[in-house]
Amino acid sequence: MKKFNFTKLSEKLPSTVPFVGPETQERLNNRLFAARLGANENVFGPSPLAIRAMKKEAEKIWMYGDPENHDLKLQLAKKHAVQSENIVVGEGIDGLLGYLCRLFIEPGDRVVSSLGAYPTFNFHVAGYGGQLDTVPYVNDYEDPERLVEKARETNAKLCYLANPDNPMGTWNSGKKIEKVVNNIPDGCLFVLDEAYVEFAPSGTSPKIDCSNEKVIRFRTFSKAYGMAGARVGYAICHSELASAFNKIRNHFGMCRASQAGALEALKDTKHFESTVLKVNEAKKRIYRIALENGLKAIPSATNFVAIDCGAGKDHAFKIMNGLIERGIFVRMPFVEPQNRCIRISAGRTKDLDLFEASLPQILDSIR
Amino acid sequence: MKKFNFTKLSEKLPSTVPFVGPETQERLNNRLFAARLGANENVFGPSPLAIRAMKKEAEKIWMYGDPENHDLKLQLAKKHAVQSENIVVGEGIDGLLGYLCRLFIEPGDRVVSSLGAYPTFNFHVAGYGGQLDTVPYVNDYEDPERLVEKARETNAKLCYLANPDNPMGTWNSGKKIEKVVNNIPDGCLFVLDEAYVEFAPSGTSPKIDCSNEKVIRFRTFSKAYGMAGARVGYAICHSELASAFNKIRNHFGMCRASQAGALEALKDTKHFESTVLKVNEAKKRIYRIALENGLKAIPSATNFVAIDCGAGKDHAFKIMNGLIERGIFVRMPFVEPQNRCIRISAGRTKDLDLFEASLPQILDSIR
Repeated sequence: MKKFNFTKLSEKLPSTVPFVGPETQERLNNRLFAARLGANENVFGPSPLAIRAMKKEAEKIWMYGDPENHDLKLQLAKKHAVQSENIVVGEGIDGLLGYLCRLFIEPGDRVVSSLGAYPTFNFHVAGYGGQLDTVPYVNDYEDPERLVEKARETNAKLCYLANPDNPMGTWNSGKKIEKVVNNIPDGCLFVLDEAYVEFAPSGTSPKIDCSNEKVIRFRTFSKAYGMAGARVGYAICHSELASAFNKIRNHFGMCRASQAGALEALKDTKHFESTVLKVNEAKKRIYRIALENGLKAIPSATNFVAIDCGAGKDHAFKIMNGLIERGIFVRMPFVEPQNRCIRISAGRTKDLDLFEASLPQILDSIR
Repeated sequence: MKKFNFTKLSEKLPSTVPFVGPETQERLNNRLFAARLGANENVFGPSPLAIRAMKKEAEKIWMYGDPENHDLKLQLAKKHAVQSENIVVGEGIDGLLGYLCRLFIEPGDRVVSSLGAYPTFNFHVAGYGGQLDTVPYVNDYEDPERLVEKARETNAKLCYLANPDNPMGTWNSGKKIEKVVNNIPDGCLFVLDEAYVEFAPSGTSPKIDCSNEKVIRFRTFSKAYGMAGARVGYAICHSELASAFNKIRNHFGMCRASQAGALEALKDTKHFESTVLKVNEAKKRIYRIALENGLKAIPSATNFVAIDCGAGKDHAFKIMNGLIERGIFVRMPFVEPQNRCIRISAGRTKDLDLFEASLPQILDSIR
């Protein structure tokens, strides 16, 4: 007799997780990070209006949040010039990607992504028994045409593209994606992860009508809105697809304070704009630091910069570890050839001061 | 060509949801409820320490929460005299029940519960294609012996019992459950939902060793700790089962402020104890109000009282609607014969004043 009568699928799933949190490393090293530049969190934080709303709502936390996310959906619909029925709110994009895979993927179903793209998507695909086929990056860029071709070849149910991309920070133009969307094969859903799109040049987000049943796009309050810890993501899609999430989602899964915070964050366009400016300044400084150290920064449309360390994985790994040892939490891509890079989130002045001081020391010690 | 290439299972799932939130009714009626006594929320609220911690953490909401829930698990383990490896923290018991069903249930698998017990569990069972077999309540009590017998007859993978019960508020002794646990058939996991157990007489929670791989129990911060809107639930179980959740859970799914609030809530035993006293006083008042109106209150070990309205479903429905029309949010059980009752959460003085004033008016208008 087996100890646990798991499903065949969960029996064979590995216990690996997509990301180890910085807190785990802090506990292992028995000290806190001085700078937290590894998870592409937005160090500039949310709107003071959002913080105030969350604090106010903490007083009412004895009540469940609205399971329909009615008010938040209404404002998001206005923002995107769609209807509330086109919006799904969930526990971060991660949570929504899980629901999406559950709706579409059963064991053996094929899914396409780029080799080395967002691992949490892959985690969910594997979690429902999907088979992932990948397309390589081309010069550190995801390749939308090839992704859709691959989806056609494999009869894939989902085709994933993050635009801008994580972990490389590169991006494709909205026009290019619009073209690609016209070629999505029947039976395939194009999954457009726009977690970082608010940092990107205008024209990066394609025009996609919600009557197009072949595309779902994802947005989040974790990045430009600075609320990663609140867990608020949303999808924009055809109304029938949006309503399918209601068959399976955790209806009472949203934190009430997070709902309130997100609603207020949307109103503060001034804070939002100033955040994007600060992120851009920080990125410029990271570009410069890389250059001054003889490394190559890859132009980024996100709130982080991938720095090409100029050699293979081991070299990048040493630099990443050197930074971690000096109290700077950073991460690096998982897959070749992207793993010749380290990935640095846009930090505050004091965070980047530490990075700027540490990097040459580390490079010296490695040479 | 189908519009969406859903899995066979999600294609056929109904779009029904377990519960409609009070906000939906408020929007329909275009006015707010004056008293919120329908979702068994804890109107007395969380510890001021928890509120303070949530407010403080709102300032740090730009950071993701710890995906391991390390500190919270450590304190919960201490509280229950188990190890951290025996604890799983998740987005409310609802979220954890979803993960549990995902780990164990594939289409056609059998699951046992009581007829009219917690519908969100049934929602998740159906959501993974499980087939639910039910056992009737006996005099408004769940019947643990019969549940386990039924599990044996049907070769069930999961056998669910809420103790104390929702929606009836009745309870079985810990001793009885310990006995039943000894009879759980091989291949079956006993799912003990203890969401309300902190309100119950001592001895209601059975002694269950975490080395027993046949039982998983669920607890929450939504009820006695007054933090329903924060979405923090947890499971206590065998370490191997606990670690299986890591294969599928939304690792970064917890709100950072909720983690911090729950941690502080655990420390404030004084507030916790005073809440339980207040709930008991409120329940006594609901018992008395029922009696004075010629209705029968069913003794409850939870923070709510099911009131037997003395006739069938239609009668109870009229009374529930009368209360809702008068601005009091209440619910009623879904299934016969329990649906001869209405269910009233323990309220503050002002909430129960309104209930006490409204109930005789409604009964008069119905007669």
